[in-house]
Amino acid sequence: MASSGHTVKAFDEDLTDLRGLVSEMGGLAEQAISASLQALVNRDLDGAARIVESDKRVDEIEAEIELQVVRLIALRAPMADDLRDVLAALKIANIIERIADYAKNIAKRVPIVSETQAIEPLSILPAMGRLAAEMVRDALDAFAARDAEAAVAVCGRDRAVDDFYNSLFRTLLTYMMENPHNISPSTHLLFIAKNLERIGDHATNVAEMVYFAATGRQMAERPRGEDAFGQLDDLDEKGGTR
Amino acid sequence: MASSGHTVKAFDEDLTDLRGLVSEMGGLAEQAISASLQALVNRDLDGAARIVESDKRVDEIEAEIELQVVRLIALRAPMADDLRDVLAALKIANIIERIADYAKNIAKRVPIVSETQAIEPLSILPAMGRLAAEMVRDALDAFAARDAEAAVAVCGRDRAVDDFYNSLFRTLLTYMMENPHNISPSTHLLFIAKNLERIGDHATNVAEMVYFAATGRQMAERPRGEDAFGQLDDLDEKGGTR
Repeated sequence: MASSGHTVKAFDEDLTDLRGLVSEMGGLAEQAISASLQALVNRDLDGAARIVESDKRVDEIEAEIELQVVRLIALRAPMADDLRDVLAALKIANIIERIADYAKNIAKRVPIVSETQAIEPLSILPAMGRLAAEMVRDALDAFAARDAEAAVAVCGRDRAVDDFYNSLFRTLLTYMMENPHNISPSTHLLFIAKNLERIGDHATNVAEMVYFAATGRQMAERPRGEDAFGQLDDLDEKGGTR
Repeated sequence: MASSGHTVKAFDEDLTDLRGLVSEMGGLAEQAISASLQALVNRDLDGAARIVESDKRVDEIEAEIELQVVRLIALRAPMADDLRDVLAALKIANIIERIADYAKNIAKRVPIVSETQAIEPLSILPAMGRLAAEMVRDALDAFAARDAEAAVAVCGRDRAVDDFYNSLFRTLLTYMMENPHNISPSTHLLFIAKNLERIGDHATNVAEMVYFAATGRQMAERPRGEDAFGQLDDLDEKGGTR
């Protein structure tokens, strides 16, 4: 479909509002990722509880975005490209909600992990979290700027998050084998690492949508493997055999 | 917003087509859950590869649903309740894609798990998978029939899936502690159990949307806890302390 050439100012203002809400939501999600890992390392139970609480705001914004999308479509009847823009905002909001959910899940594990002895891989997680949070921020910046090149750059960095995950997976397995007391904390750190790996995948999904919205084409190829759950990282999880 | 009283036959036909696609997609996802666990238990690598391959069809249908939604909104300009129905189909398709992704992830672990010695919890997973697959099927039946009561029943059963997960979590931890050789297979079974637990959560999300679409009200309260990542199950994961 060619561009509808839709130029109604009211529509553009609505779309700007909508994109503003998506950015706000993304900012909260990004913050939740960093804060959850800080709470984990500092055994900060109050901080963790605040993250769980603040996720409600993310859900509220998502609900607000849905309402605005319905209102916008009903009132402005956007066509073709405009409609695609509106639906992209809706889908990206949906993904951000998932990202925030992963951050919340990390926060929820803080009290459990804090009860156990600290094991070394714990100190590696914040660096992985930083990478994942940066991918989320950059994907949303690309969305705000409709910048296809920036979107491609985000996808390229998912591999680094996957490498982190695979390395942590092997390390944690070793810890578990060394000492049975490490097994319980290690499984929680493993789930946390998996959450961060999934956040990277979702940031990649957002970037792919930004690319498609900006260029009308699918991104040529995912640099990291064929799909969001990564044949690659699953194979790497075997450990030792490659 | 009150009902728009929209009665254009063409719209109803389009909506029926759309719902047909959602049902087809849901059927594939449900099948993938059962098949993935069967492949796991039977160490059936070919079967697992077929599941990974068939996930592409799920993605294709989701893309088709998106196109139809855009086309339907552009051509028919549905208002109020009709628009909400259309967007509900889009959101449910999005959730089914996630469910199918979890099933695919289980299938991808089959070659890895098949290389290791079988441990007993493996034989418990198919029963948990059956529960989760049934929840998916019943949520989609409720969607097809716009049956709010059936949707409530689906949510009530998520607790059983969570109980399964928590029990498996504890069991697998015990296996890991007993013998270091069990650690690697146990972590994969743990991820598989977590995937099934998440499938139950997503089936619950679908049921909640069906309830909302049918009644215009949010379901009073999730029977299993406050949210999709479950404070409850996270606490239960502590094991032994309650």
